[in-house]
Amino acid sequence: MSNMTELLHLEYPHLSRLRSFDGAHQTTPWLADAEAKKTRKLCDTLEQAIAQSGLKDGMTISFHHAFREGDRVINHVVATLARLGFKNLTLASSSLMTCNEALIEPIRDGVISRIYTSGMRGKLAEAISHGLMAEPVQIHSHGGRVKLLQDGELKIDVAFLGVPCSDEYGNANGTHGKSCCGSLGYAKVDAHFARKVVLLTEELVPFPNMPASLMQDEVDYIVQVDTVGDPAKISVGAARVTSNPRELMIARTAAEVIEHSGYFRHGFSMQTGSGAAATACTRFMEEKMERNGVVARFALGGITGSLVDLHEKGLIEKLLDTQCFDGQAAASLSRNPNHIEISTNVYANPGAKATSCDQLDVVILSALEIDIDFNVNVITGSDGVMRGASGGHCDVASAANLTIVVAPLLRTRIPTVVKRVTTQVTPGESIDVLVTDHGVAVNPARPEIRERLESAGMKIVNIEDLYQRAISLTGEPKPIEFTPRIVGVIRYRDGSVIDVVRQVKEE
Amino acid sequence: MSNMTELLHLEYPHLSRLRSFDGAHQTTPWLADAEAKKTRKLCDTLEQAIAQSGLKDGMTISFHHAFREGDRVINHVVATLARLGFKNLTLASSSLMTCNEALIEPIRDGVISRIYTSGMRGKLAEAISHGLMAEPVQIHSHGGRVKLLQDGELKIDVAFLGVPCSDEYGNANGTHGKSCCGSLGYAKVDAHFARKVVLLTEELVPFPNMPASLMQDEVDYIVQVDTVGDPAKISVGAARVTSNPRELMIARTAAEVIEHSGYFRHGFSMQTGSGAAATACTRFMEEKMERNGVVARFALGGITGSLVDLHEKGLIEKLLDTQCFDGQAAASLSRNPNHIEISTNVYANPGAKATSCDQLDVVILSALEIDIDFNVNVITGSDGVMRGASGGHCDVASAANLTIVVAPLLRTRIPTVVKRVTTQVTPGESIDVLVTDHGVAVNPARPEIRERLESAGMKIVNIEDLYQRAISLTGEPKPIEFTPRIVGVIRYRDGSVIDVVRQVKEE
Repeated sequence: MSNMTELLHLEYPHLSRLRSFDGAHQTTPWLADAEAKKTRKLCDTLEQAIAQSGLKDGMTISFHHAFREGDRVINHVVATLARLGFKNLTLASSSLMTCNEALIEPIRDGVISRIYTSGMRGKLAEAISHGLMAEPVQIHSHGGRVKLLQDGELKIDVAFLGVPCSDEYGNANGTHGKSCCGSLGYAKVDAHFARKVVLLTEELVPFPNMPASLMQDEVDYIVQVDTVGDPAKISVGAARVTSNPRELMIARTAAEVIEHSGYFRHGFSMQTGSGAAATACTRFMEEKMERNGVVARFALGGITGSLVDLHEKGLIEKLLDTQCFDGQAAASLSRNPNHIEISTNVYANPGAKATSCDQLDVVILSALEIDIDFNVNVITGSDGVMRGASGGHCDVASAANLTIVVAPLLRTRIPTVVKRVTTQVTPGESIDVLVTDHGVAVNPARPEIRERLESAGMKIVNIEDLYQRAISLTGEPKPIEFTPRIVGVIRYRDGSVIDVVRQVKEE
Repeated sequence: MSNMTELLHLEYPHLSRLRSFDGAHQTTPWLADAEAKKTRKLCDTLEQAIAQSGLKDGMTISFHHAFREGDRVINHVVATLARLGFKNLTLASSSLMTCNEALIEPIRDGVISRIYTSGMRGKLAEAISHGLMAEPVQIHSHGGRVKLLQDGELKIDVAFLGVPCSDEYGNANGTHGKSCCGSLGYAKVDAHFARKVVLLTEELVPFPNMPASLMQDEVDYIVQVDTVGDPAKISVGAARVTSNPRELMIARTAAEVIEHSGYFRHGFSMQTGSGAAATACTRFMEEKMERNGVVARFALGGITGSLVDLHEKGLIEKLLDTQCFDGQAAASLSRNPNHIEISTNVYANPGAKATSCDQLDVVILSALEIDIDFNVNVITGSDGVMRGASGGHCDVASAANLTIVVAPLLRTRIPTVVKRVTTQVTPGESIDVLVTDHGVAVNPARPEIRERLESAGMKIVNIEDLYQRAISLTGEPKPIEFTPRIVGVIRYRDGSVIDVVRQVKEE
């Protein structure tokens, strides 16, 4: 045989790397052992998986945040890495929440020295806003995160992905087992881009655990753990369901805006971002859709129980789900064949060959602040401290045909409509309509929308009037005092720097 | 803003590539046009798609063969490329069939100068065996093809993938529309690895055509065509259903071998390769499974109507389908949630992070020749001319716990059991049992299997005895005369050269 190969090398130089056959198991030694070939990915402990992954100081680790406030993987893995003495890691979690307070100590100790995240909340966010880290945190959108991975700025060395169930090859999903988070839309991206993928699974089920959200050909190591998350806490915080009358009133008005916007027609599509008023809007769509015989072709993004209701009533044909916002959505994903899990690449990456948000008619989004140029801040509070997340905000705002922001005019006597946002996350050019409890404003760039809403009898005000109304109620807010030091860099979905967050001056 | 970015560059050298935000549509100009953002992938003609793909002389084009003998994409695209004057292309089709006779002319004209394929048949195979090409054809297995792509020897510049239906973003499947081929297991790999992907679709359906087999984030251009294939011809040739009594007798004996092999137990798994006797074996498994209360955990590979029958009767829990061997399988794929489409990477790539054939208990495979060392030839006929395909043969043979080869002792008075195979495709070390119409032989490397079969009352012979019986019936075959010229290189699944095919000497 080696003669033949030599002959080939001589005659065809481009085949000069070909080598001769040298036994069936030369590149697959595990096939010689009937047990090993089934169990070679299984690790007894997280420590063993970390060792096998080849993780070293200075490398990048990643996580998904599908369990939101119920996550039990991020803190646990980072604590383990701290105990093992790792230093200078880059933490690339798709987002961070109030529950990640436990990261303060490993950050202070130099275990984590760099962070990429969609956002942060609670004590961790406060500490970082007050200068915990030597380097600013990179805040990206959900679509922008995939773009950073695609462009190579962000290179994941080891992804630690929590799932409720997996087989011994790594076929896993978020819809079966004890703790179901539903869609693994963020995790799919990490599994695709990471050099090594470690699954932490609550349950180990027999092969083939298919259909699977994460597939065996993107998973390296599997370790069984007691818990990966508490699904009851998915809908805590930003994804909560509201009974607040003011939020419901705003949601009802937003539904009216949709109805008369010109985009409410058979086969339209919609998304509701996180935030109680945004997600509540769905409940007011039902009656309008039934009355007008309108069926939506799809709803996109974070999927809620209200969207599932409409889907099961035949009012929304398909749900394209990158993240389940509650247990009802997670249960639906395992039950409804037209409730479809999509990766954040398919959802919103501006660098993807196609991204679903480009097909979107209407999106309802929240805001911490919106200014008179319609720029939106979803990261910093009025005190300049980080307490939110970029999420898919700028992604879908830029892509949808109609982008509506819903927000109360005031929050605990602090204006939401301001002269200039503390931090710009989504540019005003992407926002079409603002719905507040004190009136609806339309971006002057969209005069046809204003005309349609006014023709339908809706009262439209100028955004400057809302701003004036706000400060007439509260007075002009005192400017926040910042130090020159940058603690956060706000990356637009294409990777560019749209703003920075500076450290707040201590009182 | 640019000041902020400059500051970042100064303070953090690793952020020196960051640029300032410069408008929401800077990297997504199509978002400024509500129509363009939905239709930017659509091409009016194949010629336009080819032009946009950037295909140049000397590049590599690829195709899938899910329509098998009914394919209408490969010849059509190559004829178009010939008309456009392309030269020196590498053709990387997952396989080639009798229907690809039309490629002879473009090969002769230098349009195609290099070929990677799992196999070939008919006039094209004859012409190549007789020296049509200056360079030998590279024959790979299905798993080995993915390994060649993974290792970079094979780089697909443009994949031309035929599908029955797609939306305007490229979400496509093989289960809905007029001409359904079923699983797009081969195409999934090409969509993943190709630099540019052109879909040829019979039907253009509204977004979102999900769940999808090929996803929008792996598709570049879409062109609507009249036809991509004739599904009625999928089960012509190697995938035909037999009523030949000798083939049925061999299939029945193979089922008995499985029953008594030690691997026939609740939760076992099985695969039947192409070839009438192999696929027919399934029909004889049903009664044994029912009688013994055995349910298979999964069946793998090319899926047949007989396997679907057993699945729908509850005798096989899951079907992992890389290719539908008939219309019944294609229909099942769209209907049965536990009939699951898998890529050839997930099916059989020895370089994948895990491959499903490693989980396989029993596989029944065919052979054109098998020698007294159990080496198998599935490529060349006894005249030395190519007329078959490597397929998944060496992949599953190396991985399964029990590999059974089924073959008649003689074919039109020519022995199948020979002293030395004309061409080695699968090494004898991977074959455990040979079932012929003249007796069953067990590889001496598996004495425990022979013992189990004999304990069950089956008569086992030595493979040398089968060989002697063959030549006693036909006489020792005259050796084939070859020229020294190599026309085909047989690549083992790991990429190594296991054999070569030489040009047959003309009479």
